[in-house]
Amino acid sequence: MIFLKDNQLLERKLSPDDIKFRLLGHWGTCPGLVMVYAHLNRIIRNTGQDALYVVGPGHGAPAILSCLWLENSLSPYMPPYTRDKAGLEKLIASFSIPGGFPSHINAQTPGSVHEGGELGYALGVSFGAIMDRPDLIVACVVGDGEAETGPTATAWHAYKYIDPAESGAVLPIVHVNGFKISERTIYGTMDDKELTALFSGYGYQVRFVEDLENIDQDLAASMEWAIAEIHKIQKAARSGNPIVKPRWPVLILRTPKGWGGPKSFRGEFIEGSFHSHQVPLPEAKNDPEQLSALGQWLNSYKPGELFDKDGVPVDEILSVIPDDDAKKLGQRKESNAAYVPLDIPDWKNMVVEKGTQASCMKVVGEFLHDVVERNAKDFRIFSPDELVSNKLDAVLRDSQRNFQWDVASRARGGRVVEILSEHTCQAMLQGYTLTGRTGLFPSYEAFLGITQTMMVQYSKFVKMAKETTWRQSVGSLNYVETSTWTRQEHNGFSHQNPAFIGAVLNLKPAAARVYLPPDANCFLSTMAHCLRAKDYINLMVGSKQPTPVWLSAEEADRHCIAGASIWKFASVDDGVDPDVVLVGIGVEVTFEVIAAAALLRKHAPALRVRVVNVTDLMIVGPWGSHPHALSDEDFDSLFTKDRAVHINYHGYPIELKGLLFGRRNLERVSIEGYREEGTTTSPFDMMIANHTSRYDIAAAAVRGGALHNPKIQAESHQLATFFMHLAQKDRDYIYEFGKDPEGMFDTPVFE
Amino acid sequence: MIFLKDNQLLERKLSPDDIKFRLLGHWGTCPGLVMVYAHLNRIIRNTGQDALYVVGPGHGAPAILSCLWLENSLSPYMPPYTRDKAGLEKLIASFSIPGGFPSHINAQTPGSVHEGGELGYALGVSFGAIMDRPDLIVACVVGDGEAETGPTATAWHAYKYIDPAESGAVLPIVHVNGFKISERTIYGTMDDKELTALFSGYGYQVRFVEDLENIDQDLAASMEWAIAEIHKIQKAARSGNPIVKPRWPVLILRTPKGWGGPKSFRGEFIEGSFHSHQVPLPEAKNDPEQLSALGQWLNSYKPGELFDKDGVPVDEILSVIPDDDAKKLGQRKESNAAYVPLDIPDWKNMVVEKGTQASCMKVVGEFLHDVVERNAKDFRIFSPDELVSNKLDAVLRDSQRNFQWDVASRARGGRVVEILSEHTCQAMLQGYTLTGRTGLFPSYEAFLGITQTMMVQYSKFVKMAKETTWRQSVGSLNYVETSTWTRQEHNGFSHQNPAFIGAVLNLKPAAARVYLPPDANCFLSTMAHCLRAKDYINLMVGSKQPTPVWLSAEEADRHCIAGASIWKFASVDDGVDPDVVLVGIGVEVTFEVIAAAALLRKHAPALRVRVVNVTDLMIVGPWGSHPHALSDEDFDSLFTKDRAVHINYHGYPIELKGLLFGRRNLERVSIEGYREEGTTTSPFDMMIANHTSRYDIAAAAVRGGALHNPKIQAESHQLATFFMHLAQKDRDYIYEFGKDPEGMFDTPVFE
Repeated sequence: MIFLKDNQLLERKLSPDDIKFRLLGHWGTCPGLVMVYAHLNRIIRNTGQDALYVVGPGHGAPAILSCLWLENSLSPYMPPYTRDKAGLEKLIASFSIPGGFPSHINAQTPGSVHEGGELGYALGVSFGAIMDRPDLIVACVVGDGEAETGPTATAWHAYKYIDPAESGAVLPIVHVNGFKISERTIYGTMDDKELTALFSGYGYQVRFVEDLENIDQDLAASMEWAIAEIHKIQKAARSGNPIVKPRWPVLILRTPKGWGGPKSFRGEFIEGSFHSHQVPLPEAKNDPEQLSALGQWLNSYKPGELFDKDGVPVDEILSVIPDDDAKKLGQRKESNAAYVPLDIPDWKNMVVEKGTQASCMKVVGEFLHDVVERNAKDFRIFSPDELVSNKLDAVLRDSQRNFQWDVASRARGGRVVEILSEHTCQAMLQGYTLTGRTGLFPSYEAFLGITQTMMVQYSKFVKMAKETTWRQSVGSLNYVETSTWTRQEHNGFSHQNPAFIGAVLNLKPAAARVYLPPDANCFLSTMAHCLRAKDYINLMVGSKQPTPVWLSAEEADRHCIAGASIWKFASVDDGVDPDVVLVGIGVEVTFEVIAAAALLRKHAPALRVRVVNVTDLMIVGPWGSHPHALSDEDFDSLFTKDRAVHINYHGYPIELKGLLFGRRNLERVSIEGYREEGTTTSPFDMMIANHTSRYDIAAAAVRGGALHNPKIQAESHQLATFFMHLAQKDRDYIYEFGKDPEGMFDTPVFE
Repeated sequence: MIFLKDNQLLERKLSPDDIKFRLLGHWGTCPGLVMVYAHLNRIIRNTGQDALYVVGPGHGAPAILSCLWLENSLSPYMPPYTRDKAGLEKLIASFSIPGGFPSHINAQTPGSVHEGGELGYALGVSFGAIMDRPDLIVACVVGDGEAETGPTATAWHAYKYIDPAESGAVLPIVHVNGFKISERTIYGTMDDKELTALFSGYGYQVRFVEDLENIDQDLAASMEWAIAEIHKIQKAARSGNPIVKPRWPVLILRTPKGWGGPKSFRGEFIEGSFHSHQVPLPEAKNDPEQLSALGQWLNSYKPGELFDKDGVPVDEILSVIPDDDAKKLGQRKESNAAYVPLDIPDWKNMVVEKGTQASCMKVVGEFLHDVVERNAKDFRIFSPDELVSNKLDAVLRDSQRNFQWDVASRARGGRVVEILSEHTCQAMLQGYTLTGRTGLFPSYEAFLGITQTMMVQYSKFVKMAKETTWRQSVGSLNYVETSTWTRQEHNGFSHQNPAFIGAVLNLKPAAARVYLPPDANCFLSTMAHCLRAKDYINLMVGSKQPTPVWLSAEEADRHCIAGASIWKFASVDDGVDPDVVLVGIGVEVTFEVIAAAALLRKHAPALRVRVVNVTDLMIVGPWGSHPHALSDEDFDSLFTKDRAVHINYHGYPIELKGLLFGRRNLERVSIEGYREEGTTTSPFDMMIANHTSRYDIAAAAVRGGALHNPKIQAESHQLATFFMHLAQKDRDYIYEFGKDPEGMFDTPVFE
């Protein structure tokens, strides 16, 4: 697949014309991956075991594609790749060419549930995939390069969160071939004692597979042993006598890198060295000696004995492959057609009363409690910082935390995984979602960014999946960001970073969804929507502290459907013909907008203020930039055509500025948001430090309103100074008494 | 510190008025941290050992601040915090109040080299700090919460990259107190056998410190043992007989969470449970029973016996503290005044000839080789994907890779650490930089984002350091992004993600620097500048493939100083009075701009084209937004006041749009860049897929130019169609032959 564009069955002597123009691909990892595939097939055929195969090593695609062709799992999805000569030639010729198969496993690879390429997540994803599928085993190959990553290093502990009664099992196979691109690997330099100790410490039983003379017997026996051990643990748990701290099996497969390839060339070792990592004979097209070595190598597999004259594999090979298509690793329903919609309760039955104050998270926690009750096998929550801390603990009222190693808590399953590893939470969520279920990842706002590139890789998978004809939709990846920068009086500067919004904005518009619901009822509506939506990345940002409930159920419903609306109750004359438009996007920053409107009503009664809240961030971009983007007419009807607009935004202003680019008349728009100023201080001091306080807004409002209102113009300077004076007064109070003035966050009343 | 605003020495009965308004802080982790500090003091005093203390557990600041006060290491930096009653009262009263000390260790904590709060990096940072400081030991406490993170889980392997002859040692102390906020920890549920196996596998000798009845003897003996083991390993290596795979010591300290605090309250356990995580008696101000329990607890320390009447600690306590200020953990020069400027070679001696083609990375690799030679003890390179792959391998000609576990390579020190963990690379780089040296982190573009939040946390540390009066500058954190999205024909979609630029743009303008040098000579100039610059986050984005050298040494010098300039050679009439301005920002996208200019010269000779290249991204923001931002006049002289501007940008367009916001007349500006379209394909096909190809630019140019040039207006539609036709033709070729047309990337010639 790396080399040939013609003569794939070596029916004649290789010539330079048979060789591709660009030799791209990676040989080193492939022999081991193929061997594992074949042995999984043997087990599946003999026992009917339900299995998926997750491939960690980078550039493993050619190994897997060839096995998929062998078991005839390409043609059901991509008809030209038939299991015959024509299909084989097409497969080999179309690898790693423009429009062809890529070098990393991705959504175009049948049977895959994991984007290859960015190493480190295969293991965690595998654990997500087996959850709530008691009969499933995911065989996960972890390369010794990938094993150096942090996300893999901690994912070994994931078994501590797997209840063998309710979930299936991961069979990890650590493929130690010793080399990365040009350097030894860590595992490659660790001896058997070091590896045995390490994995015993992680909680495993270790078995080495390294008898190179009898590797097939060794691997077959080892796999059978491992699966028997898995079944033993599962049987005990399922019969009500769970083993305490069960020792799950792990296989360590030591085979040479590029095994079976050229031993050496011109005095340099290739097999068993980093020289086999990529293309072993890179000048095969132009160098006759390399071409001849390539011919020798490829002929050493004796293609004439492997295929019949029609290019169909001989019976001896086919006899290893499962009979039942549904059992084949490339055709498992779990990997491409397993989505189960959730049974979502009616959020309108759970709303809180308009005019009260409520914690978005507490209210949503009750809703999630009901989601858990109704979807006992298809919904899970993964969180690095504990539901209690994020005030979502209503979920725990009837569900367990699933922490098996805590013998005292007698973990017996449960819907919640709390592990202080954002990477493991994210990987489990991905594996769970891509196999048809739905999950939720609540996190402190600042630390969701730890998984940013994982989220991007995941969204690449979903993008490519939607470009296939044969992958069905999956649930959305749902994030809740709370404990935001506005309320970090315990935690300070390190916990202040709303950058994850920007990460979602970089995704394809078809996937990216960002919501900042302004109150508990809007958050309920948003959560209900997100848990039903498919194929998106949904980011919901909200507060865990009590804040005013501005909207009734019906109002929240309308507001969330529209994405943004004029809040008449806080506007002058319902917001008709304003001098200035004040916009809040986010919970606390919207509160400040309302407080500013109340201040202005008192101190600048001549100023005609319109208050707008945006709950769906995607409405602000220019028409056509996103499916939710407002038309110019709708945009103008909210924000006017030409009046000053001041936006108080929860995130970094640069993101919103980038989103707005392309809208007309932007000179009238000013934006404040988090400007990377923070510390352990009071909530209101944070607002002042970041220029998002009611006083900053009020000052901006009179400056902006002055442009259209001569009465305000006359006193705008004086008013702005007055508001800044109030800010200073509050700040003095805060520094004197160590807290915000009383009553600061009472709901403003408009008369 | 959590509770008292008055009566800190308990000279009278506690009253509600003594209690702070807001009780913020975390008690649980503190007793263990204080104990370790005291024992480090004992060692330092007795042996003169050079040591730093890195504190992993979150919210550890009060423990460390109190120890700093005890050793009188606050007042040298912050005069009011004297070691007497006044200083003690001020310290206790000002913890965790607005304007006071924060709850996490940060740059305001003397002796620290690590931002606390985002858990997982303490261990890796410690390893960076000891590099090239053979006499230094960093004692690093890793909490059992933090131990669950991936970055910590793999950082245990970092010793495999430490040469005991050239570097110091880390003494890791795993503090297992068993609980996170409301849940057990993984390590807390692992027994001694599991932990011993795990750490033996990681390569350590394990010693448990858990004799609660005699904890001081146990810890003292254990620390002495550990330091003796360290010295044994170092002595062997330094005498030329290094131990193969030396087994470095690790201490596992098992003490109850919140040890010494209230045992229980109203029937709930506090000490030894998660209830001691935060504030054990949260209603002490308002609940007389809690107030009384608080009084009992605090009096149990017998303050009357610990302090004399002036609030000075009694001699028995002071006798443990080192005499020599310079040896005190809070006053080590390495932590705040150790910056060594690099000896930077003259890059102009290393330039390549204008008009040739050269790989930016190969040329810079030679430069870095010389930097390594001249700065044998103050410069290191940390990379997750190997210098060879990024074509920086000239560095390896005379330096080793420092991989001690690879016995065959007989590692003997070396300037390069290659570990497939972006987190470990970043943590080591941070520790190395904050202790006064300079490093470089080259990475595949797509994967630098893995460390995004670490970079943000680091920049928070540097921001706060600059706000102190007593921390001197440090070197910059230097990133090279190469193997970018434009050239991923091996790797495809998973390797295509330029989002790290956006992460740097969110930083404070005082720190953020982003450079996209258009050729090898500009890259040399940029690298020389960045390695000399202080306190910045420098991101340099470039190509490892051969690309044209557009500028001579002098031209590159001028261009890099200006940040952007008109490229007359590619412009019509030197760019005077243009109809349209075409802007390239990035290597390959600038090449396409030049190619478009050549196309337009041929097919639309009437169009007056100006070509601009931007090498310093920060010049584009509005005046005042960044120290490098151009004035309006300078901006207009590059981009004109009112002509159409089309920008071909390497990153995500939304970032650049956000940057430009606030510049006048943006309606005339169009931007293309990476739009998250990718796969394994040819370089030019990537340009077409992302609308950044020469044809897209040429079409945009005629559309934009038509607004000011009637001649072009007449034929603009026809021309745009023609260019799109050329794009389709090339795409057809690429898909037929599997490669780009020949000559596509030859340097365009302008006559």
